Amino acid sequence: MNSFGQKLKFSTFGESHGKALGCLLDGVPAGLEIDEEYIQSELDRRKPGKSEFETARKEADKVEILSGVFEGLSTGTPIAMIIYNTNQKSKDYTNIKDVFRPGHADFTYFHKYGLRDYRGGGRSSARETAARVAAGAIAKLMIRKLGIEIFSGISEIDGIKSEVFDYEVAKNSIIYSLDKNKEEAQKEAILKAKNDHDSVGGVSRVLIKGAPVGLGQPLYYKLDAILADAMMGINAVKAVEIGDGILSASAHGSSNNDEIRASGFETNHAGGILGGISNGEDIIMNVYFKPTPSIFKKQHTVTTINEEVDFSLKGRHDPCVAIRGTVVCESMAALVIADMLLLNMGSNMDGFAKYYSKTV
Amino acid sequence: MNSFGQKLKFSTFGESHGKALGCLLDGVPAGLEIDEEYIQSELDRRKPGKSEFETARKEADKVEILSGVFEGLSTGTPIAMIIYNTNQKSKDYTNIKDVFRPGHADFTYFHKYGLRDYRGGGRSSARETAARVAAGAIAKLMIRKLGIEIFSGISEIDGIKSEVFDYEVAKNSIIYSLDKNKEEAQKEAILKAKNDHDSVGGVSRVLIKGAPVGLGQPLYYKLDAILADAMMGINAVKAVEIGDGILSASAHGSSNNDEIRASGFETNHAGGILGGISNGEDIIMNVYFKPTPSIFKKQHTVTTINEEVDFSLKGRHDPCVAIRGTVVCESMAALVIADMLLLNMGSNMDGFAKYYSKTV
Amino acid sequence: MNSFGQKLKFSTFGESHGKALGCLLDGVPAGLEIDEEYIQSELDRRKPGKSEFETARKEADKVEILSGVFEGLSTGTPIAMIIYNTNQKSKDYTNIKDVFRPGHADFTYFHKYGLRDYRGGGRSSARETAARVAAGAIAKLMIRKLGIEIFSGISEIDGIKSEVFDYEVAKNSIIYSLDKNKEEAQKEAILKAKNDHDSVGGVSRVLIKGAPVGLGQPLYYKLDAILADAMMGINAVKAVEIGDGILSASAHGSSNNDEIRASGFETNHAGGILGGISNGEDIIMNVYFKPTPSIFKKQHTVTTINEEVDFSLKGRHDPCVAIRGTVVCESMAALVIADMLLLNMGSNMDGFAKYYSKTV
Amino acid sequence: MNSFGQKLKFSTFGESHGKALGCLLDGVPAGLEIDEEYIQSELDRRKPGKSEFETARKEADKVEILSGVFEGLSTGTPIAMIIYNTNQKSKDYTNIKDVFRPGHADFTYFHKYGLRDYRGGGRSSARETAARVAAGAIAKLMIRKLGIEIFSGISEIDGIKSEVFDYEVAKNSIIYSLDKNKEEAQKEAILKAKNDHDSVGGVSRVLIKGAPVGLGQPLYYKLDAILADAMMGINAVKAVEIGDGILSASAHGSSNNDEIRASGFETNHAGGILGGISNGEDIIMNVYFKPTPSIFKKQHTVTTINEEVDFSLKGRHDPCVAIRGTVVCESMAALVIADMLLLNMGSNMDGFAKYYSKTV
Repeated sequence: MNSFGQKLKFSTFGESHGKALGCLLDGVPAGLEIDEEYIQSELDRRKPGKSEFETARKEADKVEILSGVFEGLSTGTPIAMIIYNTNQKSKDYTNIKDVFRPGHADFTYFHKYGLRDYRGGGRSSARETAARVAAGAIAKLMIRKLGIEIFSGISEIDGIKSEVFDYEVAKNSIIYSLDKNKEEAQKEAILKAKNDHDSVGGVSRVLIKGAPVGLGQPLYYKLDAILADAMMGINAVKAVEIGDGILSASAHGSSNNDEIRASGFETNHAGGILGGISNGEDIIMNVYFKPTPSIFKKQHTVTTINEEVDFSLKGRHDPCVAIRGTVVCESMAALVIADMLLLNMGSNMDGFAKYYSKTV
Repeated sequence: MNSFGQKLKFSTFGESHGKALGCLLDGVPAGLEIDEEYIQSELDRRKPGKSEFETARKEADKVEILSGVFEGLSTGTPIAMIIYNTNQKSKDYTNIKDVFRPGHADFTYFHKYGLRDYRGGGRSSARETAARVAAGAIAKLMIRKLGIEIFSGISEIDGIKSEVFDYEVAKNSIIYSLDKNKEEAQKEAILKAKNDHDSVGGVSRVLIKGAPVGLGQPLYYKLDAILADAMMGINAVKAVEIGDGILSASAHGSSNNDEIRASGFETNHAGGILGGISNGEDIIMNVYFKPTPSIFKKQHTVTTINEEVDFSLKGRHDPCVAIRGTVVCESMAALVIADMLLLNMGSNMDGFAKYYSKTV
Repeated sequence: MNSFGQKLKFSTFGESHGKALGCLLDGVPAGLEIDEEYIQSELDRRKPGKSEFETARKEADKVEILSGVFEGLSTGTPIAMIIYNTNQKSKDYTNIKDVFRPGHADFTYFHKYGLRDYRGGGRSSARETAARVAAGAIAKLMIRKLGIEIFSGISEIDGIKSEVFDYEVAKNSIIYSLDKNKEEAQKEAILKAKNDHDSVGGVSRVLIKGAPVGLGQPLYYKLDAILADAMMGINAVKAVEIGDGILSASAHGSSNNDEIRASGFETNHAGGILGGISNGEDIIMNVYFKPTPSIFKKQHTVTTINEEVDFSLKGRHDPCVAIRGTVVCESMAALVIADMLLLNMGSNMDGFAKYYSKTV
Repeated sequence: MNSFGQKLKFSTFGESHGKALGCLLDGVPAGLEIDEEYIQSELDRRKPGKSEFETARKEADKVEILSGVFEGLSTGTPIAMIIYNTNQKSKDYTNIKDVFRPGHADFTYFHKYGLRDYRGGGRSSARETAARVAAGAIAKLMIRKLGIEIFSGISEIDGIKSEVFDYEVAKNSIIYSLDKNKEEAQKEAILKAKNDHDSVGGVSRVLIKGAPVGLGQPLYYKLDAILADAMMGINAVKAVEIGDGILSASAHGSSNNDEIRASGFETNHAGGILGGISNGEDIIMNVYFKPTPSIFKKQHTVTTINEEVDFSLKGRHDPCVAIRGTVVCESMAALVIADMLLLNMGSNMDGFAKYYSKTV
């Protein structure tokens, strides 16, 4: 239950304030060049403490490969990666030891398991997503071999929406904003909330370019369903849409259908997926993040013995989880696409025969 | 890849115009009373041809249990159910044999598999969801033993939104509308689109009442993630939100957090799920359906050899798939909850020891 | 838990004396010619009542394909197959309704599930293996495309061992005996046990010819481990060995190692598997069946309320389950090999790139 | 494919001469006391270099827990454990870089993956089993709470068979011999082979005491089938038998059936499993290990470019892998039993209702 994927499967371990966190990535084809610097650069994009728009907790997030790579190449065996926690301040959390933080998983973990590691949210902390980014980096290296690239950026913060989606702009924005003209307002909204001891929500837009026709295993491992699973499973995500998504629910068939010409689809309302299978167009998703539940305003809550208390959180927290979250969206998308590429092999006898033919 | 669930797993088979469709439901605890009339009544709620708001294809959708039930009780072995197709008119489809219908899975199936069963969409047809409803009916019987009930209704059609969510109203509405005051306008919108040879989208709202705290297996089998998977995998669904969903992305933490009192949560913005685990509140989802791609207006498309044609679909189709789709949402939700209940057993040593203690 | 395989997965349903039994086969590549006569011929090899060496229960075991095949070709969707029970005599079983037959699953099913379908063993009956043979026939059609063939025969009955393993002889023997010179003695042993109201055990030898190097997914989906799983899971099997198996446990490394020359391995003590992966040699297994527990001699047993009774079974039973069991061994072996072929695709980047290259 | 189990699932990583090896154990119920000293003591039983009967490679095999344990208790999240390699001498292996060692996985890994980590067999080395023992130790702690214990010992070496199976004797024997009267002869056989630059095979006998009735999930996750999978997957194992196993294939039903009295089964030919489900009796298995393929005698082999060479292995190797292998058999058995206990929860509605009842 701590694993994701079928043929390319990753498993993660670790808690926010434990010794280390990490992942196992199983199913990477042998012979892939494993560029450790690239993996680290992906972790650096997600790591905390880079700016005033993020938590003040600084973590090096230095990743180390323990297995599965020999002389720079994947060997076909599980790639284990580990990230040691270095800047945990567990004492920040002694005041929440017996208290359920509103909006957090404290309440549910305690009741499900009968106990919880209260230090920084333990396993439920978004810190775990560092491990996903490490795995996702290798998935990106793998799908890049087929010319597939993943992009993302922030399309909305505190209700301030992008009017353009420029992924180059996002790459160079400290808040990954997709629209240069909205970036300042979005930054201000974050800082204002931060100063108010509050937090803001946001939306990540993800673009997958270059995916071939045919990815997705109907009917219960459809590409859109698994992307929805992958995105909804990221901390703080509350909605996922593919292509026109919500808008298509108020559209007519005649405007929502993507008509087809010899050169391809005329439009892309579908977001690149039909019947759960990629159609060769850009795959587009929007991922909706709630505001960080960790706020410093006083709130009503109860203790583990159900006593009512008024509670003000301390510690270091992101005022907007969507920002670093968008990197995680990319990573999960890459892992899904890589898995689907492997699963798609053997869809038909022609491909099966071609794979096993010796002369080709 | 045609199976869903972990401990309660169902697998479906069958195509729109094949001999039969059906499902295997594996993992039902032994000793559950299997009420065949109830199962049939659930299928009747989804079956086509009940009104002018649905396809004219009439199917009895008579379900037969082939295995796994003995003297009215489940035996713990797979419950196979079969529904014979009786009213397929395959000749309706000879004109689409070599043509890809816009908005359909024709294009993607053909390219993935190298061939396709073109009769009525074959496996990609929403007809397959009858099998989900059969499985879901048994899941409902099972979770009902713990007092859990699933409700749903249509909250929006063609942009006409419900202002109240009254599940009793929905039960008695031929289009499952949640708001008596909007039902007529919604019906008119459907008929207007139908007369225009067009179709409309819609939104289903799903409510799960009575789920205990603790359902969901983090971090990669979270309750919200698996519900998103289950809903997004239903034909024509393009977005899924949990609780406040999209709205929470523009909210502040201070307004979005659900504060807690000794008597429970003060609000339910979270939609009953925190950290991927149910918190004991109502679980609420919105599921967004695109308009039926099958419309009778002339559209641009290509043939299987990529020749451009102008194409007008014939046949019998729902003008709004969300209506019958909402029943499928309930079924999938029930299957997810039942699976999560089984998976949750053994979360902690107290429950484990209690289960295996002989004296209790 | 009623499914087997990863990429090629089959699920079975049905009880000995229920309406029908059958299977879903999921993951067959699209475009495979589905030869229904061949599938039926495989079922005919396993079906009961063909001779005095088998149970007197005559079942037509007529298989019908319900889905997944269009115009004679697999479509990539689940292939459902159904076999109706026609000759069940449930009243034969009223006398065992409350009694646990020694050597049978009656006792364990009753205690696990709290109830049981007592008619002919219900789900635990070897009758279910008809569904495996139907699935296995399609797997055989699939692997045959790569030149892989599966053979088997009986190498021992009642302690009478084959001295040669001639699979052509086995094909033409009513008891699938591998050794023409032992066949008569083996037959006599069966009939003698039958006349004594007793039963005999036996051994099936399975040969897989033509499997390429590389099948098996280490470390927890090794070819030998999954073959052991598949064989041990067949009714009445109590031991499985690969290659020299038991003998190798008393051998020295110098005699047990298969040395290698440019033209291949000099010997095949390993039975074609090294490190859980096929090495291109013949894959050889021996599968040990216990004697049919259903005997007509009086035995000690207890009732469901733990009262001691002396009990004589009635009904129709095979005096030697190994005979029809050997066909099931072949089927399971074919399903494992087909699954492993699909899983092996994507083991290395060369194959991955080749599969997705358009020009090749 | 590097994971084992369903509800209690472990995944391993690491190579013989890599930085580290380890495992993730997912699904341990929260609240289990994790006795680190006990885990280490289990690793110490398996670790190499303890005597002249084992490889000279000395490894501390010091295990460290990285996650999933808080204040001495399991938290319900994945337990990651790591073992650093300290005594690898990779230069021992430069002479085998381009050579396939007979009887080893070198040949198959190279052909499957297109490259291999040749240092000490890489991933295919039995060194990986240290991670299984770490996971198995926790499984033992878990099942012990229900009074279930696992025992094992060596019942045969180089053809010298135990006449008694005394697990107390085995515990105190450096070669885990079950029979005090055979131990010396078995030791001599090992040393003789060692002096001859050869190796010997052996048999491990495993006993599971105290397992309740009902473990095993038919029909494709049967207890015996999964035990066979687990045992056959251990390095060098070539055969597995349950209960009387091979002997039962030459027995008659009347002698092989275990008759039942009110006080229990009269015999245990079945080895504690009927129909794939535990029957409450002792579960007994024999696991057959081939002789270590790593011998120092000159052998025929080929290089990676298929050139014939005569080859003498260097390095440090066990003369009899069965000895340390028997500890691994126990670990795998414990993991299977713990998984089956969790899976069995929810087999019937009574248990399901009891689990979720609040008052009990």
